[in-house]
Amino acid sequence: MITVDDATEILNRFSLDRRTYVELKDSFGRVLAEDIISGIDVPSFDRSDMDGYAIRDRDLGGRRFKLVGEMHAGGDRDVTIGKGECSWVATGANIPDGANLVVPVENTEKIGDDVIIYEPGKESHISERGCDIKREEVVLSKGCIVNDRNIGILAALGIKNVQVYDAPDVAIISTGDELARINDVNSMTLSAIVAQSGGLPVFMGTVTDDIYRIKQKIKEAAEYDFIITSGGISSGKKDLLPIVVSELGDVLFHRVKMRPGMPMLAGVVDEKPILCMPGNVTSCLVCGHVFLPPIIRRMAHLPFARAGDVRRARLLEAAVSEYGMRRYLPVKLVDGVAYPTFKGSSLITSIGCADGIVAIGEEETLTEGEVDVWVL
Amino acid sequence: MITVDDATEILNRFSLDRRTYVELKDSFGRVLAEDIISGIDVPSFDRSDMDGYAIRDRDLGGRRFKLVGEMHAGGDRDVTIGKGECSWVATGANIPDGANLVVPVENTEKIGDDVIIYEPGKESHISERGCDIKREEVVLSKGCIVNDRNIGILAALGIKNVQVYDAPDVAIISTGDELARINDVNSMTLSAIVAQSGGLPVFMGTVTDDIYRIKQKIKEAAEYDFIITSGGISSGKKDLLPIVVSELGDVLFHRVKMRPGMPMLAGVVDEKPILCMPGNVTSCLVCGHVFLPPIIRRMAHLPFARAGDVRRARLLEAAVSEYGMRRYLPVKLVDGVAYPTFKGSSLITSIGCADGIVAIGEEETLTEGEVDVWVL
Repeated sequence: MITVDDATEILNRFSLDRRTYVELKDSFGRVLAEDIISGIDVPSFDRSDMDGYAIRDRDLGGRRFKLVGEMHAGGDRDVTIGKGECSWVATGANIPDGANLVVPVENTEKIGDDVIIYEPGKESHISERGCDIKREEVVLSKGCIVNDRNIGILAALGIKNVQVYDAPDVAIISTGDELARINDVNSMTLSAIVAQSGGLPVFMGTVTDDIYRIKQKIKEAAEYDFIITSGGISSGKKDLLPIVVSELGDVLFHRVKMRPGMPMLAGVVDEKPILCMPGNVTSCLVCGHVFLPPIIRRMAHLPFARAGDVRRARLLEAAVSEYGMRRYLPVKLVDGVAYPTFKGSSLITSIGCADGIVAIGEEETLTEGEVDVWVL
Repeated sequence: MITVDDATEILNRFSLDRRTYVELKDSFGRVLAEDIISGIDVPSFDRSDMDGYAIRDRDLGGRRFKLVGEMHAGGDRDVTIGKGECSWVATGANIPDGANLVVPVENTEKIGDDVIIYEPGKESHISERGCDIKREEVVLSKGCIVNDRNIGILAALGIKNVQVYDAPDVAIISTGDELARINDVNSMTLSAIVAQSGGLPVFMGTVTDDIYRIKQKIKEAAEYDFIITSGGISSGKKDLLPIVVSELGDVLFHRVKMRPGMPMLAGVVDEKPILCMPGNVTSCLVCGHVFLPPIIRRMAHLPFARAGDVRRARLLEAAVSEYGMRRYLPVKLVDGVAYPTFKGSSLITSIGCADGIVAIGEEETLTEGEVDVWVL
């Protein structure tokens, strides 16, 4: 038997480095697999921030300017102004050649072909070429997660496709003769944990406790990046997964010092990690929460920090653990109180409405009062 | 001009109550639109929790039992045991008629056709029919979000399809002649905010500052549940959205006491809400974060609480606000310090790498020291 921490450490060896291009509109939430270097200046021209008149600041000794042109946003007209001249500029328009100052329209009056400036204002009201982003600038780094703000930077650069890390495809298999008579729960709960950890669940179906069929199914599943099974890992005659994994590849660990979830097994088949979860529905969910987020998020190049989701709460009743085993106690959180929900590892209602887990360390035997709760 | 709070209150009138059925495997993260009432007992039979021998507890005066059958998980064999008899039961198997106790195999020895019981144990090791979920029980309520745990309850009941609330389809339109020369940023940033708020963004394309074309585009967009535009809401000649919205429907408010984002407009077209964001990229993103999550999450029947994402941080430099206007200051959070990133509302780098926003209230003019930061 191995501790949870040692088991986690062993699983840290697995990673994935496959990249793909996605359209910018599909990149939200993905992880950049390349540094993004700007190919352009943003803005790509000196741009007016106001509706008004563009002039040369050194002409401000005078107040009456001759209107010689107009520039509109998106327009491609070229206007050049000289001494004592001005041009209409709309917000977002190119600044005419020669001009270096925009006087807001509200500070002016147009009289015939002339414009009178009452108050030039204190700012130039010009966004100079490259003032937002400079050409050749590294704007986003590899490993950055695309979000609603930095996607704006990518869009501003005119990027249409972006290179991101592929999320791992995760094959999910439920095993057990009992699935002929009861509904398969584990494939759904494991798929959901995989999805929220950043992986892509692929349900491979259920398989009976038949060594040939289980082997076939796992060989098929080894096409994917990661394999998760449930059931068949205890010590009964029909618990075939330990045999199958050792015959198809290597067992990395079997049995973990934790409850529920003790029978858990991990191995490698065709260089792909395989995690074999207990068939009991609550044990399977607990093992899923303990082991899947770190490995899947690492494969997806997403950061992982369990500590980010920890909240303090008062445990309603003292919880006892078996010495040397880490206990995971599902709880429902209501107004700062953690109500244990565990009734038995084969019952889905032991965790089905829980919203947190209290972990009791291997060295503790009793926990009460204020505890840390992982929020699920 | 209207305050942010009054504007938010006005938008509270919009909701959506469209339902759809999805396959259970696609229900993760969706909101149940019906109470879920169990149609079955779970387990649907008295089930053994251990590999062992099933007996009648009243026979425990003796220690030697005659083996009369075996029950396997998923099997459909019927075994009945009588006085002094036992049956093999595997974990997950049906308990034979007559038996009410399972003795774990490790506490027994098989000798020929007889089984010797050394230690009966303290528990029955039987999960009785319905002990997990009872038939007719309301297991999940309308409004519940399907997660990795409660999806297990739905799976245990054998539910294949589940009724959920439809997420709103949100039409997104970028307007402005300037889009001929600069890249469209707002459609990407707005789409991302819509998606992370629980809506389904539908990009309708860009449109020039042409009243006929804008009208056409908005009429098409009114097929969807909610319309968002950017650009064309200031007071220039080309700012046509206020006219278009008032001609096609009603303007609910125009100009909000906030910076950036002051020109914002909201209205109704064909009974659908329309929000018209400023064209300036950072103003548009700020308005998106202020106004979109509450309305989209309400339409999607998802809970919304801005307070859930607030963190305290030390603002690096004092921030000044204009009296009567709420100021939204994008910041980058590093080790508990909030560094302002704002450079100008037309520059994407004013918010592109920010990870929070500090709101300065209408009554304050200066904020410094420890502040609340909305984490984006």
